[in-house]
Order: sequence, then C-alpha cells, then structure tokens
Amino acid sequence: MHNLQARSATTLFSGTSSNFTVIKSPNENVWGGLTDVETASVVQWLLQQPELNLTAADDAGEWDNTIFLVELMRPNKSDVLQYLDHDHPPPTRYAHVVLAVRATLDPCYAEIPVGPLPITDKSTTTWVPLEYPYTRKTQGRIRNLDADHDTIYSEWLYKISASIVDITLDLFNGTALGLDNDTIRISGINPLILPLGLFFKSDVTGRDPSKWKLEGWFYNNIFYETTNAFRKAYYSPGFVKLPSITEGDWARTDQQGPILPEDQKQPPVMVAPSGARHSLDTDQKYVTWMGFSFYIGFSRDTGVSIFDIRYKGQRILYELGLQEALSHYAGNDPVQSSTACLDSYYGFGPYTFELVKGYDCPIYATYLNTSFYDSESTHTHVDSLCLFEYDAEYPIQRHTTPSYVSSTKNIYLTLRSVSTIGNYDYTISYTFHLDGTIGIEVRASGYIQAAHSAHNTNYGYQIHSALSGSMHDHILNFKADFDILGTANSIELTSLVPITTTYQWSNPNQPRNTMHLSRRILSSETESRLNFPQSATTTMLSIINQDARNEYSESRGYRILPSSPLSSGYLTIINSSTLIHAAHWSEHDIQITKQHDHEPRSAHPYNNQDVYNPVINFDEYFDGEDLNQTDLVVWINLAMHHVPTTGDLPNTVMTTAVAGVRFVPVNYFTGDQSRGTVNMVRVGFGDGEGKGIGEVETFGQAGERVEVVVRPVEEVLWG
Amino acid sequence: MHNLQARSATTLFSGTSSNFTVIKSPNENVWGGLTDVETASVVQWLLQQPELNLTAADDAGEWDNTIFLVELMRPNKSDVLQYLDHDHPPPTRYAHVVLAVRATLDPCYAEIPVGPLPITDKSTTTWVPLEYPYTRKTQGRIRNLDADHDTIYSEWLYKISASIVDITLDLFNGTALGLDNDTIRISGINPLILPLGLFFKSDVTGRDPSKWKLEGWFYNNIFYETTNAFRKAYYSPGFVKLPSITEGDWARTDQQGPILPEDQKQPPVMVAPSGARHSLDTDQKYVTWMGFSFYIGFSRDTGVSIFDIRYKGQRILYELGLQEALSHYAGNDPVQSSTACLDSYYGFGPYTFELVKGYDCPIYATYLNTSFYDSESTHTHVDSLCLFEYDAEYPIQRHTTPSYVSSTKNIYLTLRSVSTIGNYDYTISYTFHLDGTIGIEVRASGYIQAAHSAHNTNYGYQIHSALSGSMHDHILNFKADFDILGTANSIELTSLVPITTTYQWSNPNQPRNTMHLSRRILSSETESRLNFPQSATTTMLSIINQDARNEYSESRGYRILPSSPLSSGYLTIINSSTLIHAAHWSEHDIQITKQHDHEPRSAHPYNNQDVYNPVINFDEYFDGEDLNQTDLVVWINLAMHHVPTTGDLPNTVMTTAVAGVRFVPVNYFTGDQSRGTVNMVRVGFGDGEGKGIGEVETFGQAGERVEVVVRPVEEVLWG
Repeated sequence: MHNLQARSATTLFSGTSSNFTVIKSPNENVWGGLTDVETASVVQWLLQQPELNLTAADDAGEWDNTIFLVELMRPNKSDVLQYLDHDHPPPTRYAHVVLAVRATLDPCYAEIPVGPLPITDKSTTTWVPLEYPYTRKTQGRIRNLDADHDTIYSEWLYKISASIVDITLDLFNGTALGLDNDTIRISGINPLILPLGLFFKSDVTGRDPSKWKLEGWFYNNIFYETTNAFRKAYYSPGFVKLPSITEGDWARTDQQGPILPEDQKQPPVMVAPSGARHSLDTDQKYVTWMGFSFYIGFSRDTGVSIFDIRYKGQRILYELGLQEALSHYAGNDPVQSSTACLDSYYGFGPYTFELVKGYDCPIYATYLNTSFYDSESTHTHVDSLCLFEYDAEYPIQRHTTPSYVSSTKNIYLTLRSVSTIGNYDYTISYTFHLDGTIGIEVRASGYIQAAHSAHNTNYGYQIHSALSGSMHDHILNFKADFDILGTANSIELTSLVPITTTYQWSNPNQPRNTMHLSRRILSSETESRLNFPQSATTTMLSIINQDARNEYSESRGYRILPSSPLSSGYLTIINSSTLIHAAHWSEHDIQITKQHDHEPRSAHPYNNQDVYNPVINFDEYFDGEDLNQTDLVVWINLAMHHVPTTGDLPNTVMTTAVAGVRFVPVNYFTGDQSRGTVNMVRVGFGDGEGKGIGEVETFGQAGERVEVVVRPVEEVLWG
Repeated sequence: MHNLQARSATTLFSGTSSNFTVIKSPNENVWGGLTDVETASVVQWLLQQPELNLTAADDAGEWDNTIFLVELMRPNKSDVLQYLDHDHPPPTRYAHVVLAVRATLDPCYAEIPVGPLPITDKSTTTWVPLEYPYTRKTQGRIRNLDADHDTIYSEWLYKISASIVDITLDLFNGTALGLDNDTIRISGINPLILPLGLFFKSDVTGRDPSKWKLEGWFYNNIFYETTNAFRKAYYSPGFVKLPSITEGDWARTDQQGPILPEDQKQPPVMVAPSGARHSLDTDQKYVTWMGFSFYIGFSRDTGVSIFDIRYKGQRILYELGLQEALSHYAGNDPVQSSTACLDSYYGFGPYTFELVKGYDCPIYATYLNTSFYDSESTHTHVDSLCLFEYDAEYPIQRHTTPSYVSSTKNIYLTLRSVSTIGNYDYTISYTFHLDGTIGIEVRASGYIQAAHSAHNTNYGYQIHSALSGSMHDHILNFKADFDILGTANSIELTSLVPITTTYQWSNPNQPRNTMHLSRRILSSETESRLNFPQSATTTMLSIINQDARNEYSESRGYRILPSSPLSSGYLTIINSSTLIHAAHWSEHDIQITKQHDHEPRSAHPYNNQDVYNPVINFDEYFDGEDLNQTDLVVWINLAMHHVPTTGDLPNTVMTTAVAGVRFVPVNYFTGDQSRGTVNMVRVGFGDGEGKGIGEVETFGQAGERVEVVVRPVEEVLWG
C-alpha cells in the first residue's frame, strides 16, 4: 500500500511560476522532506520523552539540551528499489533528529531516527541511536566543540582583548569588547578581506572558563608566550608596527569607475516566447524534460540532491548530489594555516537563499522554494531553486556539405541553487542535454578569506595594502550512484596509449610509432581511487554494464568527463595536519566504492568536531570489495585551486572559479539522441537538396558555394 | 605618412548588419587583406613576367605553372610596432604569392613576395624567393606531391579498381571506374563513415605513370603482394568475406525518431532589445566593446586572426590566431594508421562558409564577410564571421550578505567563424569578458572518419555494423603573442606545492603538513616546452612584466588558464612515424619562444609535402634563447582526444568535443574590472541597506532572512 499521507508531505516546496506543464509523478518522492505536520509532531513527541531532558530552544541556555535538527531520514536505497522497481510499498518514513546535548560536562551532538511516521500512535514511536551509516561506532554521538560559543566570547575572548585595549587602540584605533560600537572583531575564521594580523592562542578545553588558558600572542611573525611579554616588547624601542588594511570602495561590490556609453543600453537577454517546456509535479518535486525525469531532494547538510534520474525511461543515476565542500587554506599565520572549512557543518540547506531573478537565473525560470529546520519549526526560503532551459550559444551539431548545411540548436535544462556559506557563494547547477548527457557545474563568488600581509609572499600574492590573497583549495565532493540498466555495473578505463608496432602491411624492419586503445576493467576497491591524467596516457573512465551490450557487442555505459580548468580535483596538501582523518574523500579526483546502505555519504557535518576519529572516515569505505558488475557509487571531486589576485577584489569572478563534470553516453544508444529534436535546420545550396552524405569528401570545389546566401528558416516572434 | 590607398583596402569584408555603432579605427588595419584591385594588379603583373612562365588557371593543365595564391603578405611585427607605437608610416605592403610550378619533372610550390603595393610603377615591382620566415632554406620552394592529382585517378587508380571489378561487384555490389554512376569511391583519406575495408598500396613516385608500381592488396588483415595473389586467394575455398556497411538514416543528420510534445514549442532564445553594443569600423575590421579593441585579419591558411588586442587602451596581445589543426588517427589498416591531416594544407580561409543565423550565431549578431583567392580572382563568403554579445547563464559576480544580495550580469562578446575542413566543422570563437579576460574556444562537429571494423577493437569502439570509430587526436595550435605593458615580458610558473614545515607559533617537534606557493621565472627556451599538470603540484602559468609592477610590488600579467575537459593538449603518439618533423608543435601543451620576425608561425601549409624536411620545423625555434624580460610568443595547443562512440553517429556533438583556453588578468589591475558595468543589482533585505561588508561573518542568524522576498529590479522590456 502506498502511504497516501506521505504523498502530501511536500508542501515545503512549491513553485511560484505556473507556466510549466503540470504532471503527476509516477512514484512518491521518498526523498522529498517532512511535512510541517510531521516535523511539528516529532518535535512535540521529543519534548515529551523525559529521558532526553530537552528544553525548548527559546528557553534554552548553554547548559540545556535542545533539538538541533528534525528532517527526513533518507530511506535506504535497497528499500527504495523494492518500491520503485518491484511494486513494494514505499519505505517506512522516519525523522532524522539531531539533539544538542549540552546539560553535561561532555557536550555532544546525538543523532537519532524517530518514527515510524506519521506519529499516529505515540506508543509505537521510538528513537534509537543512529550508528549504522557511520564508520565511527559511538552510538551516534560526537563531541560538540562549540557548546560554549557565547561564554567563550563573553567570559574569555573579550576579556583578553580588553587586556590589550591600549595596544589595539594604538595599532588599529579600535577595540573588540563585545560592545555595539566595537570597530574590530575577534574571529577564529573568516577575517575575509580586512584581517589585522594580531593573533592569540588559547586552550579552551572543558566547560569551566576558570580553567581556560591563554598560551601566547603572535604578531609580525614573532610569538610571545604571555601577554606581559607581548606588552613589554610592544613598548620597547624598535618594535615594528605593521601597516594595517583600511576599508574602502575597493572592498565594495557596487558599480565603480567610469561607465561606458554602450553599457547604458540593455544587453542581450534570454527569453522564453512559448513558456516553459519542462513539466513538473510541484507536490512531488518531480521534473520531466525532453526524455529526462528526476526527483528533487533537499537536506540541511548538503542542500539539493536529485534522485532516480532517468533518460527515456531508464534509470541512469539513483542519486546525484553534493556531499561536502572543503576550503583549505595555508599561510604563515596560525589562522590561515589552520583553516580547513568543512561546509556541511554549517549546512548548505539553511544558506540556500532566494535567487536574484534575471541574474542568478533567467526571469522566465520556474522558481521553487526550499525549507530548513530552525528552533522547532520549519522555515522557507522562497524561490531558492530555479529550473530553466537555455540556448547554449553554439549548436549541438552542425555540418556543411557541398549541397547543404545542417545545424541543431543546443537547448539544455538547468536546475540551480546558490548556497552562501559565510564568505563564499557556491552556485551549483545540474544540467541535462539533448544527447542524454548530465552535468554538474559549480561556480564560486563572494569574498575571499585573505591574510594580513606579513612574511607570507610564499602563500599568496599581495593584493592590497597590507593584504595577502591567501592561497587555498576548494574541493567539493559529489556522490553519483550510477545504475546503468540495472545495479550491476563495472568501471572501464579506456586509455589512448602511445605504442611502437608493425602491421601485416608495414615493413617489419621499420616499426611504426603510433597509438592504440587500452581497455581495462577495474577489479576492486584496491585500485579505485584515481587521479587523472596518469602519466603520458589520456584516460577516460566509464561506468558500463558488461551484461547489457549493444548489438555491436560494446557495453552500454556513461563516461565521466571532467570539465574543470585545472585537471586536478584533489587536495594539494598531503596528509593535512588540520584535517587528519576528517576528509580523506578529498585526496583523489574520482573514487569508486561498492554501494552499501551503510555507506550513504562520504562525509558527515560533525567530522570537524573530532578530526582524529570522525563520524565518517572515508578511507574505511575502501576495504577491497569486488567492483566487477556490482552496484557502484562514484565519488567525484570538483576543485578550484585558488591563488587570489587583485582581480578577486572585491569578489571572486565566476568566469574562472569553476569546476564541473559531465556524464556522457558511451555506446548507450545506437546514435546521437539529439537527432530527436525538431529545433534543427537544413539549408540547401543550389538546388536546395542534399545529394547524400557520401558526397562530403568532394569539398575541394569550394567555389561552387561562393555567395550563395543561407536564409535562416526561423522567424523570430517579436519581429 | 599613412598610406591612404591602403586604407580603403578592405572592401572584401563588409558588414551586412547595421545596428552597431560606426566608428573610425585609430590606425590602419595592416593585416586586413588585399583589395580586389591590388590582387588583380598583382595577377596581371605576374602573368607578364616571362621567367615565371605562368599560364592562366582556366587554360592550365597538370604541366603548366599557375598562380595558386595571391594574398596579403603580413608585415613584420617590428615594422608594425614602429607604426603603431612610434608614429612611423605603415609598413610597405607586399603580396604573398604562391605559384604551383608544374611545367617540370620536379613540381613544386614556390613562394614569392611581390611588391611594393600598390603597383604603380611596374619597373619597381619585384619578386623574390620567400625564405626568411622558414627554417627550411630552399628558396621558398617545396615539392608538390599532388601535381598529378587528375592523372593519378584517370591513369592509375581507376585502372587498378577496374582490374578487380569482379571482386568489388561481388563484395560491395559496386564499382569505382571514374564514371558518373560509380557507387563506391577510392580515397586516400576521408572514407568517413562508409569505409569498405579493401586497400591497395602503390608507389606513384615521379610523373610518369608508366613507372608507377602497384605494391599489394590488404583485406581482412591479410596482405597480398600482387593482384593475382589477391584474386587467387579470393576465389579459393575458405576465403572470408567480411560484412560491409550499408548507408541509411543512421548516417543522416535530419530529425529522426518520435518528437516530444514540448519540443514543438519554441525554445528560449537570446534577443538584443537595444541592438548591438559593440562598435565597428567595417572598412578596417576594427572592433571595440566595453574597453576592448582589436583588428580582424583573415588568411587562406588559418582563417581568422586578431591583432593589436587592447583592453582599456593597453595592448595585451599583438597577435592571436590559429596556426594549424592536426587530426592524427591510428588503426590496424594502412589508411587509418597513416592519416595525420594538417589542415592548413587545405586552408581554413576558403572553407570558412556562411553561418546559419540563429543556429551558429544569434540572429541579432553582426555578420561580416570573408574572402579568399581562387583562380586569379577573389571570392566572397558572405556572413561568414559573426560578432555578438551573449548573456552567460550565470552572473560574473554574486554575493549574499545578511543585509543585501548583489549580482552582476555576465555579458561577453564573441567573434566566431566555422571552417569545414572536409568531414569536420571547427567552430572557433574568440571571447572577451567584463573582467578583462580573453578566451579561445574550439568546438568540433561533422562526420567522423571511421574505419571498416576488422581486427581493430584496440583502435576504437565498434559503433555500427562493420564500422569502427577510429581513435584520433585533434590538436589545434594557436599563437598568442603577448605584449604585457610593452614587449619585455617574462614567464612565471606559480605552483601550489605540498610541504611539511614548522612555524614560529607551532610546535617545533610536530612539523605541519600544509602547502605553499612556489614562484619561478622560466629562464630560456631550454625549459619552455611545458605540459600541465606536472606531478602532484598544480601549476599556473602567467605572462608577466617584471618591470611593470603594481603598487604592491606584484608583477602585472595575464594567466594562461586551460579550459578543456581533458588536460592534455599534446599528441598521444610519441615521434609519429607519419608526421616525422612536420608537426613538432603538437608535442607539448604550451610552448614559449622569443619573438622573431623570422619565426612568425609554428607551421606551414606545405609541411605535409616533405615531412622529413618541412618548410617550418618547429623544433628549430627552440635554440636556448633567453626568455627573461623579452618579447614572448606563447604557442598553445587545444586538444580533443577522440574515441568515437555510437553517439558520434551521424555527427559528433559539440557539447563534449571542445577545447579552450582563457587569458585572465593576474594582478594587472588593482581590482576586478567587472565592477565597471551598470548591469548589476543590489537588493537589500529588511531596511534595504547593507550594513557594510564587515558584517558578512555574522551569517549564523539566517532566520532573519527567512521569507524576505527579493524583487528583481530589472523590468523586462517585452512584459
């Protein structure tokens, strides 16, 4: 039986545009999220469980337990496939709950599934520690390093800052005392583009501020073990005071400089004369377009994921979505050197803000809402996803023959969201193309995290007075759970390899330098952590089904084609002293594992709370399992190796801060699927009729075509 | 004195659109081509020189000398800079003439400059052998392997084919006899997608057909030394006849298959409500747009090049243009194994055909004509260049702060042409971006050259019945002559390098694993042939001027950022037995030389006529010259390593057949230049006013922004 209650579980998403064709999804979107009613009922139930000792968020202090998160617990793939492919009922729904346990000397986050949903009979509702999807087996609990965030500022940081107020006034003409009129701030990360270059180190272990220890000061590459030592040096002759940065228009994003006359004219703009050509079930977040179909899921940690992606009825991917985003800095100062943000800690969901229509996406796009949990209720970011077709400014196919020219419009569909995690805005787009290709593209903008420029020319360019563009790597990990004509898939590496050989027709005494194709099936997880390219060969990786061959005996599959400016998708730093075991997923370009319900994600938002023993240690997924004709998950890193320049001021430009990957059919169909579109043209020369493709070779007689005018067949609607 | 006569020398190009702003170029386009009058006068003068013994093309046979080409002889950079930068008159104009010398037992091509132009006093007009720009010093003469093209077919190939007509009828139900009703053809290259798998080898050395020799037959991986041996085997029991390909809809580009209902609606389309925002001197082919300016040149061998590319008044590049396109195949049969097309032999200019409006470029684009020389006169391809702005479907900048969101439209300018060299259509685009970036993008479509499928699974996938997609590399070489604030430039390699180190503030007994920046200036041509990436480091290459530093002491420059899906830009084959010395430019990703007037190009169209001793041997450009603060030329390879799949039938799709590079400002300005555009928006939340960028860190309070609706400030003109 289908769970009809759950079928209306998705009012959190609703389209604000209505020009698309309304359809009914063939299945329930089991990844779509909880309803407001479900969330409220789970919160209510949790607050009634005495053993959890929970306090409502509004009443809670740093020593109370609170409900940090209530969202859908994503069902196991094995259960969902029974539903989608074998007529079973949809999987039982559970809520994924995270508690902030702080009424203790050892604060932690505790993860518990609660259900089954809906909560109809409270006596059958249970919670259990969540452990099976994690490599760390500690009852779903991990320490919370941030439990005393407010106390740290009020009882510790501002007191330290106050102890040197004479120096901050002298150096920066500013104070950081926790007052409304503070002009400088104390920050562990994100000094952004106004860093001042004064650092102190403290040990805040435990929850008792009286036991916290100040361990030293750092300025101008000199370390002082105590405040007294720093003060003494500061007032000694010869103490070098460094210049500091001054805020100004250089740091602002508004229009600056002379305006070019032509720029006052409206630039070109994409319009959709016939409205949307995609179809949508807004209730189920189910999209169809030109043979593609997929369901949209959304979560706190990683924002948008898409599920059950099919083309012409056949599933290509079970799941496609972001897992984690790392930005790892380096520098001679302790903040830059120690910064390695794992952004799912903050969560992409709550920071997926409303899109700017006509800028982030075309005005005619279909805009959808997203929602997130905060303080016992669900909040909505309206118009924070967009779905639109676009005309790439080049055709997908074109060819001039002696008798005609043919060309085909390259229209594609994009599903986009933008998540602003502090300083950086990640624009993440999933694209769908007429040849059956599926793409991911990530672009970054926003403010860089920069460094005070002192002794760090080996860590970045100086980009403003007293400012160094701090070098860093962005690595974004995506999960692509391929199901090519079933779940039994294999990995084929196809390499162009230089060779020296002779042939039946060639001189046996004169071997020829040429190349051939090397095809190899990867056997197991012992060899499935890959970097491209390897040595002098050019290697292509495809996910194929060796049991699903086409009529020419080639395995049908999809190729994974990176499309980033810099080929390397992995972290530059080897064995990062900051990350330790928290992000082993970042160490190779593409990594492939056997699918398991207990290995659903490459990372966990609280991996940064205990880097030596993270909740998910990706290394442990690689235990040598066989990868030949089994269910495969491809973990793909998209990277930007960023050495900021003056051109990153005020914001990084998205034209160059980009990384992407495409999944391209390889012998999957018998021909190019873009031949199906009617948005193509064939224009004849002379008699207007082609003589057949066999004539293409006779291109020598170019003179025949001189001054024949090609007339576009398209009439533009608006004249 | 400016040469006013030459100033009107450019009627061969003329815009057919008129919605752009008409401007006057500040200088004469000295690369713009000859006038019709100049060409005609040179032809007339040449035909009058008895020592050349020339015959008019219409009257000429294979034993006559003819004028193969008359076009502008591009002036030396050293002379042009005197004109552009030092108020000298424009360089004296010469015609670049190629003669097909065939009234001899040793036919050759002879290159001669003729001038000065215009020819006013014939007694002062001279011709000389052209030798100084070539590494091969043979008086500008190189043998012509194709002098007897017609005779080879009539007196040799068709006779051989006739000798086995019984076999071709039996195997293919076809004959190749040189008749109008031939159903098969004999071809040395380009069997395209209907190859039959029967080969013969002949020695056609010399011009006397009676001395030509048939040297064997090849079928089903068996070599037969004589026709008799082949025939005997053919009629012996057990001879294996292979299946052969059948033409059909699978090989045709027109619409096929069921039409999706939504596809009948018009898809989105870019429009330009205010018309063109670029300005143009059509006479001088001089373009300006948003601070950029450049001149368009055009030649037989390589089509479009652009010159004197400036941004905000400063020259960035003296010259940017295609040099050569190589497509190198491999296979077990002699045709695939020996095919290495060097396309400038055919020439990109004559095959730069009229563009399909609304498909190859937007309807609103400005279309320009190109012209080429053929048989003593100039021919025009109308509307074969296009120039248009486009709105990338993502902003160039965007950032959400707690109090506002800002986003900037990403409008760019494209100059595009499409050259169809036989089977392949190369779409070449030069792009200009609001941040000062300049890009090159090449996309390929058209018919693949495929192989008959027999014993060649190691050379490609089988993609149709009896058809193998023949593996090949496309390598396109571009010249980028950078002039960053003058001609004295240097090459900086900036690498992100993993390191282990300690800091003043860190525990000396616990070295940290981190990374730093390695900056290196390349010293000379001994180390300037580069591949990316190198080992574990991620390396960026910039052309900088160490004598032009910004106020923070960083050298101003432009970074060279590849943007191709596969990082390798060089030929897979090592020391190709087909190319020998004809294309050493193809062996690395990026190669940099000191600029010399005598090294203007990396390749020559007749390099394929004598691969052991080509006209230009690129290796010889690397003679150890110092590259520190000197005039640099960067030779960049854009590559597609192509293993065709069923998705290449009928045509290769341009979504994945792409390679590109971008030149991005590095510390060239003090900030991002896209801040100059007015096509940006800032939308405030709450009180509508930003509190300043210093507040960006306070992103924790996301709840504040819940359900605040961002209203787009742009009104779309058409409602």
